[in-house]
Amino acid sequence: MKITVWNENRHEKTNPVVANNYPKGIHGAIAAFLKEEGHDLTTATLDEPEHGLTDEVLNETDVLVWWGHKAHDEVKDGIAEKVKVRVWDGMGLVVLHSGHFSKPFTKLMGTGCDLKWREADEKERLWVVDPTHPITEGLDEYIELEKEEMYGEHFDIPAPDELIYISWFEGGEVFRSGATFKRGRGKVFYFRPGHETYPTYHNREIQKVIKNGVKWAANTNTPTPTRGNAEPLEKNSEEVKE
Amino acid sequence: MKITVWNENRHEKTNPVVANNYPKGIHGAIAAFLKEEGHDLTTATLDEPEHGLTDEVLNETDVLVWWGHKAHDEVKDGIAEKVKVRVWDGMGLVVLHSGHFSKPFTKLMGTGCDLKWREADEKERLWVVDPTHPITEGLDEYIELEKEEMYGEHFDIPAPDELIYISWFEGGEVFRSGATFKRGRGKVFYFRPGHETYPTYHNREIQKVIKNGVKWAANTNTPTPTRGNAEPLEKNSEEVKE
Amino acid sequence: MKITVWNENRHEKTNPVVANNYPKGIHGAIAAFLKEEGHDLTTATLDEPEHGLTDEVLNETDVLVWWGHKAHDEVKDGIAEKVKVRVWDGMGLVVLHSGHFSKPFTKLMGTGCDLKWREADEKERLWVVDPTHPITEGLDEYIELEKEEMYGEHFDIPAPDELIYISWFEGGEVFRSGATFKRGRGKVFYFRPGHETYPTYHNREIQKVIKNGVKWAANTNTPTPTRGNAEPLEKNSEEVKE
Amino acid sequence: MKITVWNENRHEKTNPVVANNYPKGIHGAIAAFLKEEGHDLTTATLDEPEHGLTDEVLNETDVLVWWGHKAHDEVKDGIAEKVKVRVWDGMGLVVLHSGHFSKPFTKLMGTGCDLKWREADEKERLWVVDPTHPITEGLDEYIELEKEEMYGEHFDIPAPDELIYISWFEGGEVFRSGATFKRGRGKVFYFRPGHETYPTYHNREIQKVIKNGVKWAANTNTPTPTRGNAEPLEKNSEEVKE
Repeated sequence: MKITVWNENRHEKTNPVVANNYPKGIHGAIAAFLKEEGHDLTTATLDEPEHGLTDEVLNETDVLVWWGHKAHDEVKDGIAEKVKVRVWDGMGLVVLHSGHFSKPFTKLMGTGCDLKWREADEKERLWVVDPTHPITEGLDEYIELEKEEMYGEHFDIPAPDELIYISWFEGGEVFRSGATFKRGRGKVFYFRPGHETYPTYHNREIQKVIKNGVKWAANTNTPTPTRGNAEPLEKNSEEVKE
Repeated sequence: MKITVWNENRHEKTNPVVANNYPKGIHGAIAAFLKEEGHDLTTATLDEPEHGLTDEVLNETDVLVWWGHKAHDEVKDGIAEKVKVRVWDGMGLVVLHSGHFSKPFTKLMGTGCDLKWREADEKERLWVVDPTHPITEGLDEYIELEKEEMYGEHFDIPAPDELIYISWFEGGEVFRSGATFKRGRGKVFYFRPGHETYPTYHNREIQKVIKNGVKWAANTNTPTPTRGNAEPLEKNSEEVKE
Repeated sequence: MKITVWNENRHEKTNPVVANNYPKGIHGAIAAFLKEEGHDLTTATLDEPEHGLTDEVLNETDVLVWWGHKAHDEVKDGIAEKVKVRVWDGMGLVVLHSGHFSKPFTKLMGTGCDLKWREADEKERLWVVDPTHPITEGLDEYIELEKEEMYGEHFDIPAPDELIYISWFEGGEVFRSGATFKRGRGKVFYFRPGHETYPTYHNREIQKVIKNGVKWAANTNTPTPTRGNAEPLEKNSEEVKE
Repeated sequence: MKITVWNENRHEKTNPVVANNYPKGIHGAIAAFLKEEGHDLTTATLDEPEHGLTDEVLNETDVLVWWGHKAHDEVKDGIAEKVKVRVWDGMGLVVLHSGHFSKPFTKLMGTGCDLKWREADEKERLWVVDPTHPITEGLDEYIELEKEEMYGEHFDIPAPDELIYISWFEGGEVFRSGATFKRGRGKVFYFRPGHETYPTYHNREIQKVIKNGVKWAANTNTPTPTRGNAEPLEKNSEEVKE
């Protein structure tokens, strides 16, 4: 399976806390633990030509992981459109944390994707609400993160196809923090945790969810529907009579 | 609209705290505020013959509200079955709080309906996650209850057709506390709050949700499907040729 | 309730069959039967300034009905964006037939919205699959249209929040022909029938579905969530200790 | 993976057409093609002690396949209850054709599960409506069966968690013929085709769907929620102050 981890990679360059958490970038950290699963890993970042997402890269990618935050606007519309269309064609997409406001995600959702937020070193506890889901494989009924940014409802997304995790926050909010959506032949998994100033992607449980999410999001040779003008499959009654 | 409020009515008889909260019973309190909407109200309780749910009562009821707790087992299977079948036929059902373990609800869900719980005077905050839903009409984005029993995930229900409220609890849990389900021609609304030792059903916001829920659950003359052996609507190609 | 019926209004001007079916335009026909419900009706068409959808019109519209076909591309992006954002803010949207490819609908869906089609005077039979839904109020378990354009699966939409009608077509296809979607505070109803060369909008059952759809899509004073940076609702444990 | 194929096995003994289609019983035919996937296969039938579904068999079964028709009533309630509870605990369940009226399925659905039907050698065409789903892996956008029993809407099930196939029938009906449901930790796949008088389970595409369905339904070590009385995970503000 070919996985591309895309990262904005800006906080890492300017904020020493983030650089310290992720010396090889958030993309580097995510790629490292996904490699443990035996996947074929590539990374791509905002400042590369075409943001590292050339047609060739996208066409060969089975699952794209996306992390972005303060530079969503710098992602070219044309590239975001290509990502969207590749998802429709069957590429999996795992959108992390502040990626909720990224162009590919908002285009695929058709909603504003806004939410409440607060940076206050709060405890987050993610509760499993779908204990059948392969994304929860090997995990416990909740995950605790000692310090994270708060995201609170109302999260302006369509009702998810599947709701997997709901987060509790110390300050009094809740959040639908693990959710899946299908678009065309493609599967999208949104997973909330991962504010850049915390070492969240070093947490083994969070890594496990992302590993499971990538596996779930990969398309498995499902049908490619034909569309447009179509010949009838049945004769109509007039024709049968003739 | 004819509404029947069913209540176990046992705690009221033995626990002075409950009797004090609800001098006319939980059913009396709920019937009183639903009457404000101009509905035709009846109540029924466990210790009446047939639990007050004769065929005549059920057949004339547009929406049944259900509160039960410690005597679920005393509800006769035959009556619970009749309630289930009446829901299939189009009667709305609003299940409150500990009614999650009632026979009609568990039969309609097909799941265990178990959950975590704790009686510790905790704050509950119910967040709206579906701000399109008529059940949230006239309400704010959250409701706060200073003291309630905690119910926590995993709540063992099918994925709701619509998830409307998610609760935050002081002790660290979350709960899908407002949810809808369709069964046959009938609509079911589950709403969490209402532990007997708190005056929750005197809260105007909680009353508003239940008023809205009753309105939403009423069937509006939708189609009655025919089932069983069916004549073809189209001639098959052999017949057409003849 | 204020309803605006939007129509491309091009076929009516060039195709005598369409002009004959709808002497006052498709918008005129739809507005006429919706008026029977006592609503306040306006129409708007493509060739008016701002396509008749000024900020004032949109802000005052409770439910917008949309019919478009061959001139989707002529709808200005800015206007389509405004429609989308108004839906997020609570305006209902009823999208008819070939409106599946309209800019507002595709933006709200986040998918390609393509399908199979054929113009061959085929019989369509729409089966109710959700007999609880108020959109089916007063209707039978199926609706038959002697001649319609065929639309066939795969219809490239997200899994609907509610699937109400599935169509059978003479030529061998099926189609999810009545479906609802929620976006932000707004409700969207897609309803398939209504090819311009057939008198479909004169059919009383089709009219009834659209009347019901408009009623369902109207927002009923539901909460307006606040979003963005948020103060905590609870003191954190550090603060409590102080 | 351990799979148990359960079959009523009555038609095979009395109807030569069925015996001819399935000399080793419907269970034998299904077990044979599932073995091709390398699974560990067992069969069980109605007339065995405990219908072949002892506690030991059920506890060791990862996925149970169910075919029943004219003897649903002879399945003991106690055994049906055990199957239901095993599904809640994580066993996958694939229910075929007339199994829609079986005790385990109706108990898990909470609805009547009735439908229209007709035995008239009609063509069925199953259209994929979810081309992301692993159950459609390796298949085309539709499957054609020259002769099958007709099942028509309204199919009295809860709205499926996922709708995968919709069937077109020659006589004018449609049917939601491939659908998934989650119950507790268990996954349920209902798949329509397979009337006993046709050789449907020898069709390679139908076999492929069932193979995929079994793979999908198997639980993958997901969390086992704890329920009942629960200690708080957070100190409440009173405690913190002390």
